[in-house]
Amino acid sequence: MTDSITIDLYSDTVTKPTLAMRRYMCDAEVGDEQLGEDPTVNRLQEMVAELLGKEAALFLPSGTMCNQAAYAVHCQPGDEIIMDRTAHPLHFEGGGPTTLRGILVQPVDGDHGIFTAEQVREALHTRSRYQPRSKLISIEQTANLGGGRCWPLETIREVCDVAHSNGLATHMDGARLLNAVVATGIPAREYARSFDSLWLDLSKGLGAPVGGVLAGSESFIREAWRYKQLLGGSMRQAGIIAAAGIYALEHHVERMAEDHENAKLLAQGLAQLPGVRVNPNEVETNIVIFDVAETGLSGEQFARQMIREHGVRFSQFSLMGPAIIRGITHLGITREDITTALRATEQIVRSASLQAVG
Amino acid sequence: MTDSITIDLYSDTVTKPTLAMRRYMCDAEVGDEQLGEDPTVNRLQEMVAELLGKEAALFLPSGTMCNQAAYAVHCQPGDEIIMDRTAHPLHFEGGGPTTLRGILVQPVDGDHGIFTAEQVREALHTRSRYQPRSKLISIEQTANLGGGRCWPLETIREVCDVAHSNGLATHMDGARLLNAVVATGIPAREYARSFDSLWLDLSKGLGAPVGGVLAGSESFIREAWRYKQLLGGSMRQAGIIAAAGIYALEHHVERMAEDHENAKLLAQGLAQLPGVRVNPNEVETNIVIFDVAETGLSGEQFARQMIREHGVRFSQFSLMGPAIIRGITHLGITREDITTALRATEQIVRSASLQAVG
Amino acid sequence: MTDSITIDLYSDTVTKPTLAMRRYMCDAEVGDEQLGEDPTVNRLQEMVAELLGKEAALFLPSGTMCNQAAYAVHCQPGDEIIMDRTAHPLHFEGGGPTTLRGILVQPVDGDHGIFTAEQVREALHTRSRYQPRSKLISIEQTANLGGGRCWPLETIREVCDVAHSNGLATHMDGARLLNAVVATGIPAREYARSFDSLWLDLSKGLGAPVGGVLAGSESFIREAWRYKQLLGGSMRQAGIIAAAGIYALEHHVERMAEDHENAKLLAQGLAQLPGVRVNPNEVETNIVIFDVAETGLSGEQFARQMIREHGVRFSQFSLMGPAIIRGITHLGITREDITTALRATEQIVRSASLQAVG
Amino acid sequence: MTDSITIDLYSDTVTKPTLAMRRYMCDAEVGDEQLGEDPTVNRLQEMVAELLGKEAALFLPSGTMCNQAAYAVHCQPGDEIIMDRTAHPLHFEGGGPTTLRGILVQPVDGDHGIFTAEQVREALHTRSRYQPRSKLISIEQTANLGGGRCWPLETIREVCDVAHSNGLATHMDGARLLNAVVATGIPAREYARSFDSLWLDLSKGLGAPVGGVLAGSESFIREAWRYKQLLGGSMRQAGIIAAAGIYALEHHVERMAEDHENAKLLAQGLAQLPGVRVNPNEVETNIVIFDVAETGLSGEQFARQMIREHGVRFSQFSLMGPAIIRGITHLGITREDITTALRATEQIVRSASLQAVG
Repeated sequence: MTDSITIDLYSDTVTKPTLAMRRYMCDAEVGDEQLGEDPTVNRLQEMVAELLGKEAALFLPSGTMCNQAAYAVHCQPGDEIIMDRTAHPLHFEGGGPTTLRGILVQPVDGDHGIFTAEQVREALHTRSRYQPRSKLISIEQTANLGGGRCWPLETIREVCDVAHSNGLATHMDGARLLNAVVATGIPAREYARSFDSLWLDLSKGLGAPVGGVLAGSESFIREAWRYKQLLGGSMRQAGIIAAAGIYALEHHVERMAEDHENAKLLAQGLAQLPGVRVNPNEVETNIVIFDVAETGLSGEQFARQMIREHGVRFSQFSLMGPAIIRGITHLGITREDITTALRATEQIVRSASLQAVG
Repeated sequence: MTDSITIDLYSDTVTKPTLAMRRYMCDAEVGDEQLGEDPTVNRLQEMVAELLGKEAALFLPSGTMCNQAAYAVHCQPGDEIIMDRTAHPLHFEGGGPTTLRGILVQPVDGDHGIFTAEQVREALHTRSRYQPRSKLISIEQTANLGGGRCWPLETIREVCDVAHSNGLATHMDGARLLNAVVATGIPAREYARSFDSLWLDLSKGLGAPVGGVLAGSESFIREAWRYKQLLGGSMRQAGIIAAAGIYALEHHVERMAEDHENAKLLAQGLAQLPGVRVNPNEVETNIVIFDVAETGLSGEQFARQMIREHGVRFSQFSLMGPAIIRGITHLGITREDITTALRATEQIVRSASLQAVG
Repeated sequence: MTDSITIDLYSDTVTKPTLAMRRYMCDAEVGDEQLGEDPTVNRLQEMVAELLGKEAALFLPSGTMCNQAAYAVHCQPGDEIIMDRTAHPLHFEGGGPTTLRGILVQPVDGDHGIFTAEQVREALHTRSRYQPRSKLISIEQTANLGGGRCWPLETIREVCDVAHSNGLATHMDGARLLNAVVATGIPAREYARSFDSLWLDLSKGLGAPVGGVLAGSESFIREAWRYKQLLGGSMRQAGIIAAAGIYALEHHVERMAEDHENAKLLAQGLAQLPGVRVNPNEVETNIVIFDVAETGLSGEQFARQMIREHGVRFSQFSLMGPAIIRGITHLGITREDITTALRATEQIVRSASLQAVG
Repeated sequence: MTDSITIDLYSDTVTKPTLAMRRYMCDAEVGDEQLGEDPTVNRLQEMVAELLGKEAALFLPSGTMCNQAAYAVHCQPGDEIIMDRTAHPLHFEGGGPTTLRGILVQPVDGDHGIFTAEQVREALHTRSRYQPRSKLISIEQTANLGGGRCWPLETIREVCDVAHSNGLATHMDGARLLNAVVATGIPAREYARSFDSLWLDLSKGLGAPVGGVLAGSESFIREAWRYKQLLGGSMRQAGIIAAAGIYALEHHVERMAEDHENAKLLAQGLAQLPGVRVNPNEVETNIVIFDVAETGLSGEQFARQMIREHGVRFSQFSLMGPAIIRGITHLGITREDITTALRATEQIVRSASLQAVG
């Protein structure tokens, strides 16, 4: 069935390495990463540490492991992480920090995934012996389920100030941080400054096949190494895949502006279709979230029909509502693909409306 | 410093992908592995399931994660795994199943890493409310710290029979299972038959850069997927690295016979050197463990001098004794390298003896 | 300061053993409980099993341990318990099941602590590999932060049916179950029927100094014993305190009707005071929750003034609102105490109103 | 069956409260312990803090919980405790710190439960990323499975010095510390000085029915409170049982000298019986461990016959050997009981010898 997908807006995780990236990987110099002897892994780590203005960085096989390792370093069993109700670890990481470490997560009701310093202040657990201890604030840049919204620098600073002045550490799940950088022009290290730890995903908009890079102070990264080992993230000649990360950081960052334009285009087109609700002004990066409830289709029906009849894949978000659909643009999606996808969507929603009327 | 290593007998984890393997990786067809859409990952999993005679298999970024995921599926907090005192998880996985899951490990004093059914029977914890519950037997094939010794099929069957008849599950850490297969001529699926779960390492003797493949029943693998996700082992276009595994299974298995010959040659040569204790008859696969105590050198001194003066790297095993050295042969080591390494060793031990006498 | 408290409505946990109860304790026959040789503990366990219609029961040093042991038997790390957002373990047990066991808690927004079968159906996590697994429904009878509301038998049946038909277990935190029994006339074993495990608190309305009793099937209790041992709840000559439980079950159950009358009286009196908001019709058992916001006092100010000026202690519930106050009646509170407490409250709120106006 | 036990040497945990102790408990002034309002609990805690020379103390329902709470404060998941191979938590606490917290235990082969500073030095895990971290030394005074041997003050100091100078904390499981105090004349606070935390058991030789008291610095006890709450050790009017502890500390300490004399007497008597192996010179406190292998009886047979035929109960220690028997003297055992028990033992072993010969 997947063969028939010609336009894949499911996620930016579906990007495939380009030929140039593959060649670069093929030529990578490698060594035993566990022994610190893989020169390509070492170089990637230095590049990311430099980019984010941190002392050190660590290559890991996934963004989920970046979160797990960071949470394990910052928190102990019975500690609590404050994050937005829509944050990734709450929905897609198998109960992550809780399952592995007995860490509690306190969800905060942010606006499009973004919460305020005031909300943090209210959520903080005072040091009662009856309650878990707030130890970490974790934010997601951009806010995926918030529609790719960028956390404003000012909000970040305020939230992190409240955290730090109450003895909490701060962590950024930077799965799409570089999208925010490209969209706002604010340098990555500016965003990074308030955080004790943060990470970049190589396998989303950057288009590398595998991996994330976690950054922080030298002592933080030394501790994170223990969890890399423990969780099974210590690989051997990982330079092969780290090379793709280097290539991506050198060639695929600025081009994300195209993804953002395409997302805007998609949202604007969708906004004109009957029964589709979306506000194009809310699209800041490469994510478009829209509601097809008024077409009479459920999210599942819409998503299935788009694949079957047009080879266009969106993802369906039942946890956000019965007819909520998400499309993500990435380096595998052209402007023409957007036009085609819009035409396909129009057909589906129009025929749904006809049926609904008929 | 590592530049100067010309003959690396440190471990078979240091193997680098060959040019042919790199090209195969470069051409791999890929997809989103988390969605089950990476055809190369899927093919590797099928190959390993077939090879081991199991219903299903799962690609993971490391052998350590294969162990962690399997232990988590088989055991809950307060359960106990019985394994040899020299087994890998006890020494190199950060307290793995205990740290992540509250699982206890009961070490058994095997012979060269191999224990008996009788020892299992004695180690079993009866179901007292005061004691943890024995839930799993885990064996390592070949026994790394046991000098690469192969678990005999008969012993495996007896040990697993005791386990199963007492309600325990059985797991094989098959990091070097294929070395045992090549050395004994016993098919992998014969070794696998008694085990509820087992895995192959792609990044040791097989020479792939990254990964391991865990196999078992369909329901076991379905559960293991949860831990793959949770531990951060879900990757995206992982076909790039899985391709190396396919290539290795197709081209690098039979050639391990050479590694075993080279290891034998190394042991025979070492046995003739003054102050070096090793029994060549105990070398069954690609691992040679020897003692340099009688040269007057500590293990650390010996290992350092070999690197500095000759560019030959062995590993030093302080946990097995103050002057215990291990050499491992692999596809990056030729017959000539063994000769050179022996000549270098001779120089070091002779000059040490002279100094000791002098 | 505590000396000066003459009327203590803080909680029914403050009840002190009566002279008759003390004498009964003093005369108790005892033995080594860990060896199953304490006849008084054994008798208490049989009484509770009988009362609740379960196969077996287990004496534990607290209700919190009853919850912890039950949760640990029912759930593993990464499993999820569905409970009301106001439930005790979420606020007063130090992150209990999460901290000790890596169990997740999914809060549901019930009405006065009581949620519906439909809400359970929506909260159930389908067996996605990305999400924790729903394994247990836990309800609190009566709902403490819900104002002592009794879960209706019909709602219990519906909720438990949904749970069981989806493979979840069911647990009742019966800290005040006997209040519900006395208030509704429904026998305890009727309430208990739908639950795989449940417990009674001896140290609340029953007036015993220490302990709770957990009940369930024989195999459940056998497993719970492991956690009693593990958590440090195995005592020795515990018959001394179990005796108080026996005495309480024999003498203090029916008298809880007085506590309910006193609570009603308190609510009715409060309802007539200016600036105090409370609905006496909502008072079903021994808990009265009221709001003093309109007096201009914060909850903290009100509670402090009541103690200092009148020796009357209420508790203040900042997590339910800035001016929310709770009073609980129990065997240490007489009808006269209620009159006195009302008079004292009247003075405080009137002088607050005057100040506010002035 | 237990009715028929007239002389119970099973353990000092079987002691029953005396009439005077019961009366003292009956009269105890109590309050809500969780609120810090139980004057009897508070007084007991002060007495123990004073006795042990520590800033603060905490009453808990059992010695097992004292260990669990202390281990949880000192260690995090993946940390390691060094203790003797015969120590209580390894055999009787359900995998305690591991199950609840993911803490590893490294057993050391001491002599009669007592290990040396040199053994600690060797056991220490250097801070490799592959290994758990040594964080705590835990010793048991007296060494129960070591036959009630007293840790010498000098050994304690040396062991604790090595621990502290390597950044480890130190903990004493003082279940029978007061036996050591009485036997050696060394004050409890002298023994306590080298430890960051330690506890006394009230329900062993002291003869109270329930509880232990954990002591340490104020900040340590503040943290321990969290675990008291979490583990379910927060009780309510616990003064009832704390009173027994106060009574025991005031009346039952010095009398333990009698228990020690009785144990010596028992050992001397046993040493003269055919087929019984025991060295009376090794008996330092109230524990006698002896071997009946040469009588031809298994430990289980011997123990059963003693109960059935003579109403004398010893405990049988299969984990120390097939015919190892332990007797413990306590306040329920008189000098006459020892004579009777010896006569009974003589009958059993003589008839066993006859049968063996016959």
